[in-house]
Amino acid sequence: MNITVAVDCMGGDYGPRVTVPAVVDYLHRNPGIDIILVGLPEVIESELRAVKVAPRSRLRVHAASEVVGMDESPALALRGKKNSSMRVALNLVKSGDAQACISAGNTGALIAASRFVLKTLPGIDRPALAVVLPTIKGHTYVLDLGANVDCSAEHLLQFAVMGATLVSTVDNKEKPSIGLLNIGEEEIKGNEVVKQAAELLRGSGLNFYGNIEGNDIYKGTTDVVVCDGFVGNVALKTSEGVAQMLSTYLREEFRRNLLTKFAGLIALPVINAFKRRVDHRRYNGASLLGLRGIVIKSHGSADSHAFGFAIARAVDEVRGGMLRHISERVAQLPHPGKNPDKYSPPLTEESPA
Amino acid sequence: MNITVAVDCMGGDYGPRVTVPAVVDYLHRNPGIDIILVGLPEVIESELRAVKVAPRSRLRVHAASEVVGMDESPALALRGKKNSSMRVALNLVKSGDAQACISAGNTGALIAASRFVLKTLPGIDRPALAVVLPTIKGHTYVLDLGANVDCSAEHLLQFAVMGATLVSTVDNKEKPSIGLLNIGEEEIKGNEVVKQAAELLRGSGLNFYGNIEGNDIYKGTTDVVVCDGFVGNVALKTSEGVAQMLSTYLREEFRRNLLTKFAGLIALPVINAFKRRVDHRRYNGASLLGLRGIVIKSHGSADSHAFGFAIARAVDEVRGGMLRHISERVAQLPHPGKNPDKYSPPLTEESPA
Repeated sequence: MNITVAVDCMGGDYGPRVTVPAVVDYLHRNPGIDIILVGLPEVIESELRAVKVAPRSRLRVHAASEVVGMDESPALALRGKKNSSMRVALNLVKSGDAQACISAGNTGALIAASRFVLKTLPGIDRPALAVVLPTIKGHTYVLDLGANVDCSAEHLLQFAVMGATLVSTVDNKEKPSIGLLNIGEEEIKGNEVVKQAAELLRGSGLNFYGNIEGNDIYKGTTDVVVCDGFVGNVALKTSEGVAQMLSTYLREEFRRNLLTKFAGLIALPVINAFKRRVDHRRYNGASLLGLRGIVIKSHGSADSHAFGFAIARAVDEVRGGMLRHISERVAQLPHPGKNPDKYSPPLTEESPA
Repeated sequence: MNITVAVDCMGGDYGPRVTVPAVVDYLHRNPGIDIILVGLPEVIESELRAVKVAPRSRLRVHAASEVVGMDESPALALRGKKNSSMRVALNLVKSGDAQACISAGNTGALIAASRFVLKTLPGIDRPALAVVLPTIKGHTYVLDLGANVDCSAEHLLQFAVMGATLVSTVDNKEKPSIGLLNIGEEEIKGNEVVKQAAELLRGSGLNFYGNIEGNDIYKGTTDVVVCDGFVGNVALKTSEGVAQMLSTYLREEFRRNLLTKFAGLIALPVINAFKRRVDHRRYNGASLLGLRGIVIKSHGSADSHAFGFAIARAVDEVRGGMLRHISERVAQLPHPGKNPDKYSPPLTEESPA
């Protein structure tokens, strides 16, 4: 079966200038995938003409007349922009015309629209954002990254199930290990929610490693790191900050004088290999997990190389059958959610999350 | 007036082997300071004999018969070890024999004993741990780092006052800028506690910059970064993890083959300058703020070079008159704590925090 994904072409800091070339490049490299380009047709067509060799047989343009601004209120966007590129792309997933949606648009608006259009899977109360991060050993998946600022222990358990399923599906690992992000390894550490979550995880049948600390993320101590969205977002942005500072320092030291500049010239291939290794573009594409459809959030500032990784992630999740696996795993929990068959809380356009 | 500080010689991963040489070295470099070495006299004396040229006139050994283990329960240590080196050093501050206490021991036990022995300052509900971190521009102070896992908006306001005072005192800055760590800059972002804290900070008379994100810590966007202890601890440990990973990657790339090893040899002076610049030992010494006495927590794994920085921090805070300044600033708040003159909540040895 051919896989079809819907791309919100208007989202992100650069819109179609980045998304359209990324799609065309992806199609050239990946046979067996069809892509629906969603957005303002004239703008998309103009970008398609610019790339020239577009594989027209495997892509089509689907019109959406509105665009959600990067700083727009998610609630207002949900109420007011029913024909936005992001919303229309999600509708294509809901109708079955596409199996996944990729957007680099406004994160809050994408989450709100995804919940409203697709609803959550049985047993899942809230969707969560998961990213893959590099580690000393390889990589790890961290969730939630900001979709949920206040979480209960049950939510953290659901995040663990979704994270484990993501790793099984994408990395083909049978029993991924789960770490609970805390401020110490001992069971007595942390706040009440984290302590309760540890209790639930111990009885969940998941491969629960136990509490881990911030430095364990990059040590690669576990395959999955579970935390609430506030903590996860701070940890991710702090990591970016450290990396930026260290690379600034390194550059400054190499530029200090003629001698260090010469050393920099000699070391250039090594520095470039190092840079390629930590290139964050390779990790672009956060999975919005727990919905009745696959949704990938690309970084707003992604270039077309990075956006291609977000498309690839969506396709991997479709191929692996992730939605079915999440449902199966949630159903296997010894203590499933209070209403394992309920949809997400009634979310209307008049009272969005 | 001579400044006298009490050093818990038994704390930390290495105990007197690190603390005693650090004290002796510090005394040699800093006239006008006296140090009381607290711990098991025979062990301390043996280390003093090993360093030989100890400035005996400016140090004295004060016996404490017990040692709190690094993994011991803070509650049990508080109840059971009334003659621990850490507790006796704090008693010396309380009695006025010393103006500050430095310990590399068990963090939880040090916080519990400090609260019990010294009590909090008027208007301060809880002590907070503050560290200084390097930034692209210079450095910034972050608090809380783990002393408080659940914080109210009022606690965050008090942390801001204490952080601002620390910067004024130690860095001689009149109106340090305060950032509130959040998951976005907009006022609508974050959880309820953070939103309320922003409200309090806007009306506090402090130089409140607004919400900042994780990457702003290392950009040096503000002089002080305020957050709850859970978030702060995760951010700090995550930073350590990123730095470790990047340095491992860099080392591996330079060791890849003969050519890269040669490049590494040429680049060695640059790499070493870079390493010196990010040497975390220079930032050793977290201030436990809000108590009726100055307490500095050294990293448990500090070597004697790093421990020296913790001693220097204590002396800076004494010289600057930090305790008086915190009290003055808290009193100036338009909305002071509910009981501005109350001591910390009744904390007994039978029911420690």
